[in-house]
Amino acid sequence: MHDSYSFSQAEKDGLYKAIFSRRDVRSHFIKKKIPYNLISKILNAAHHAPSVGYSQPWNFILIKDEEIRNQIKNAFISAREGSISMLNSDTYRQEKYQKLKLEGISESDINICITYDVTRFGPFVIGRTSIPETGEYSVCCAVQNLWLAARAEGIGVGWVSIITIDDLRKILSIPYHIKPIAYLCIGYVSNFSDVPDLEKSGWLKRMNLSNVIYYEQWGKAESETWSGLKELINSVNSKNTI
Amino acid sequence: MHDSYSFSQAEKDGLYKAIFSRRDVRSHFIKKKIPYNLISKILNAAHHAPSVGYSQPWNFILIKDEEIRNQIKNAFISAREGSISMLNSDTYRQEKYQKLKLEGISESDINICITYDVTRFGPFVIGRTSIPETGEYSVCCAVQNLWLAARAEGIGVGWVSIITIDDLRKILSIPYHIKPIAYLCIGYVSNFSDVPDLEKSGWLKRMNLSNVIYYEQWGKAESETWSGLKELINSVNSKNTI
Repeated sequence: MHDSYSFSQAEKDGLYKAIFSRRDVRSHFIKKKIPYNLISKILNAAHHAPSVGYSQPWNFILIKDEEIRNQIKNAFISAREGSISMLNSDTYRQEKYQKLKLEGISESDINICITYDVTRFGPFVIGRTSIPETGEYSVCCAVQNLWLAARAEGIGVGWVSIITIDDLRKILSIPYHIKPIAYLCIGYVSNFSDVPDLEKSGWLKRMNLSNVIYYEQWGKAESETWSGLKELINSVNSKNTI
Repeated sequence: MHDSYSFSQAEKDGLYKAIFSRRDVRSHFIKKKIPYNLISKILNAAHHAPSVGYSQPWNFILIKDEEIRNQIKNAFISAREGSISMLNSDTYRQEKYQKLKLEGISESDINICITYDVTRFGPFVIGRTSIPETGEYSVCCAVQNLWLAARAEGIGVGWVSIITIDDLRKILSIPYHIKPIAYLCIGYVSNFSDVPDLEKSGWLKRMNLSNVIYYEQWGKAESETWSGLKELINSVNSKNTI
């Protein structure tokens, strides 16, 4: 390791490699136990996320139990049925959607439900007074830390969002003041796809970076003050690897 | 770099170093321009965040203009006044709060407002049908990617959440269907604190990791099925560096 302040090239490469090769995994889980020291490590990475007012409002429910997973799977199946019916007027996409594998609840080694506790160190939390959602946003930063750490350890993570919050609360005995934010399926994988599954299946493509950048104001896609940056951003549009 | 699948020790170290040494920066910005190639790089890292249904619902408004920053600063000051009055019944914490520096809007090299577009690739977005908030959650993952990439490049980031969404929309001409998620102050810093500012100032401490872990169900802090993991988690409680 380099000194504590600056990053060596290999250290920088490691971070970008995790960011660019991280995948939302549903299909490639293999039967192999994650050692507990790695579970502990990725949880610690999550716990070091930024949080509004240092409120650290997250909890992690670790799930192995098969009966609980079966209930979660059934909740997923029923929520998915609802989604499919929303596409009744678009049979092309409906058929495509039905072919997608969208979860690895049973095949993954473990599941983790990450929750948000609005009461943690409250009611006054610095920085949460104008935008209450920032409490939930902190938990999302923890999810992303966990996801990147898992990737670096060769472990896949899939975020299953096709379950209702009510079902999650009921199955996991989560009280009403606690909000489930993410339900994750976690395990070793045979491989990480080179592009996201939804790109591979032709559902959507990655946008060009330049199309999501504005200058000084919403909608302003050109700026003299920023001249030179736009060309650089255009040049990374097609280069997504490090 | 190692091969494309597995991470070398230095690559892993780099990721954990970014996670553990990332800080929410308000006080240590220095007058030094960030090269455009690095701005482009950290934006590209953000753009590679996971997103529900691959919807990539983010936009990045890059801000240098002093007049706009002044307006943002005024919006911050007025929101902060509101926060202070919420502590009228707790003068000890009120005084402490008033001494905290909570933004670096003018001193940082650039500001970035990251927004959420609910209409992007919609209205049907895979995985957003049961929990609509997952759209906003995707944007938070992009914020965290940007934050970590900036840290690896030696660049500090401070998330200013003490501004109302209405003020952000008005000042940055953001239309009503677009929601500002994060307002970030970004620039080189003299140093990164060894612990978060709110810990240094005695506001709050980092919780023990073991206190935020449950097994199989909410509230279950012990589990035979997971025996062995708890000891490992306890052992990382006091070790937050890599």
